[in-house]
Amino acid sequence: MNIGIIGLGLIGGSIGLGLRKSNFGDKFIGTDSNKENALHAIKLGIVDEIIPLQDLIMQSSVIVLSIPVDGIEKILTNILNEIRMDTVILDTGSTKYDICNRISSHPKRSRFVATHPIAGIENSGPISANSGLFYKKQCIICDSELSAPDAISVAIKIYSIMNMRMIYMTSKEHDLYIAYISHLPHVVSFSLASTVLKKFKNKDNIFNNMMGSGLDSTTRLAKSKPETWLPIFISNRKNMIQAIDFYIHHLNKFRNHLIDKKFNKINQYIKKANEIKDKKICVN
Amino acid sequence: MNIGIIGLGLIGGSIGLGLRKSNFGDKFIGTDSNKENALHAIKLGIVDEIIPLQDLIMQSSVIVLSIPVDGIEKILTNILNEIRMDTVILDTGSTKYDICNRISSHPKRSRFVATHPIAGIENSGPISANSGLFYKKQCIICDSELSAPDAISVAIKIYSIMNMRMIYMTSKEHDLYIAYISHLPHVVSFSLASTVLKKFKNKDNIFNNMMGSGLDSTTRLAKSKPETWLPIFISNRKNMIQAIDFYIHHLNKFRNHLIDKKFNKINQYIKKANEIKDKKICVN
Repeated sequence: MNIGIIGLGLIGGSIGLGLRKSNFGDKFIGTDSNKENALHAIKLGIVDEIIPLQDLIMQSSVIVLSIPVDGIEKILTNILNEIRMDTVILDTGSTKYDICNRISSHPKRSRFVATHPIAGIENSGPISANSGLFYKKQCIICDSELSAPDAISVAIKIYSIMNMRMIYMTSKEHDLYIAYISHLPHVVSFSLASTVLKKFKNKDNIFNNMMGSGLDSTTRLAKSKPETWLPIFISNRKNMIQAIDFYIHHLNKFRNHLIDKKFNKINQYIKKANEIKDKKICVN
Repeated sequence: MNIGIIGLGLIGGSIGLGLRKSNFGDKFIGTDSNKENALHAIKLGIVDEIIPLQDLIMQSSVIVLSIPVDGIEKILTNILNEIRMDTVILDTGSTKYDICNRISSHPKRSRFVATHPIAGIENSGPISANSGLFYKKQCIICDSELSAPDAISVAIKIYSIMNMRMIYMTSKEHDLYIAYISHLPHVVSFSLASTVLKKFKNKDNIFNNMMGSGLDSTTRLAKSKPETWLPIFISNRKNMIQAIDFYIHHLNKFRNHLIDKKFNKINQYIKKANEIKDKKICVN
């Protein structure tokens, strides 16, 4: 059985490495629009062979689509047009509604499984890939009733090999919730980085000297690349605007308490925020 | 030579443990308004003995004042009133201007050294203390020209033992810059935690299931306790309001680009934020 991976970056690369540790799949074939990534993927043992997209589609029993979400939206219909009726295709995009919506009436819709393994880090490319990236993390499967049972089984098998736990929801729910859990933290982090970089423009020395570990963790996500994140923000635009507005509302509450010297309110605000401690956090 | 530590929490405790690894100081004495902290400090070997504040002040050659900044402002004048002319006292507070201002005309001002070792983590108390907390991090010494040369030497000696690098600036500069580097990231994190906790109220299951490592790092600081942070926000209120407003301005830029579908502008925004990669980060 051939496994075809389209997009050999962090996610596609880690799936390749993870699956190759098991006995799932005989041959791994891949493609990437970035030649350097493709070369690295061969060197790192992510895939056995780099072949053109068209050939990959014809030769694979399972296709993993791990490219930015705008790319997924663009090529998924074409891939569905061309696959055999027993091929399974799954994507790993961070938004799901637009992707599912685009192919909702395709005659081969049931061969597709919409998945989101929640495991991104700020680094990218096949050199950041590792077989343990998904260990004990969550994988969301969306609109599962629209996929064929055998296709769902293959997706579950793949993610289970990598020790992921499966969660099910609609693509609409996914995009709303993930806007708060993952996409908003990225905007928060990009904006904080922009703020301090602007404030310390031409003050490199002071900035480097004072940088503490607090700013480090809050700006970790600000290192994430636009090629991945701009398409996510575009695809999840409405939910993002809602999430950002809700966040600015909370920030303004804090700000106004500070302006009005309502220090008791700030005390309550911090105590409330501290409850994040009690929440279960995925183990890296 | 007796070293007296007032406040045996994370910072005071780590200084105790760090100094005791060297041959600096003969006996370590401590005091803490929290009896449990005091007991832990003895058990953990942070100090040899817990004694009343008055006795500590009289018996110490060096006093380290590691309590919340409102506490420092409250008791520093009294301590200066009572110390011998050769005692050195240093504080570790996260704001410096109000503290320095409060004692600016004290006849024993020169015995005091205003310091800020930048090494806080979200955990607190003596059980989180460790001798390596300050390793290769920065310590800011403020208004050093107002301290006696021998007092400055003692402070440098203490922080050098723990492998810190010294930086010098005025207390006014310190409070402005630290508002952006440390205090703003805390507000950002408290507000993000508040936002997601509110959004997922009564949706614990979804929240726990979806929580990824992105939200984890951006809300790490939201676990910091109000006893430490409320006094910091009060003391650095004006700079904080400026920093929060500057941050909201940057957030709104992003939001408006998203509303206006100026995706090219968002691309530039992310690329600009990515420059945080090139900045030197303190190693934990």
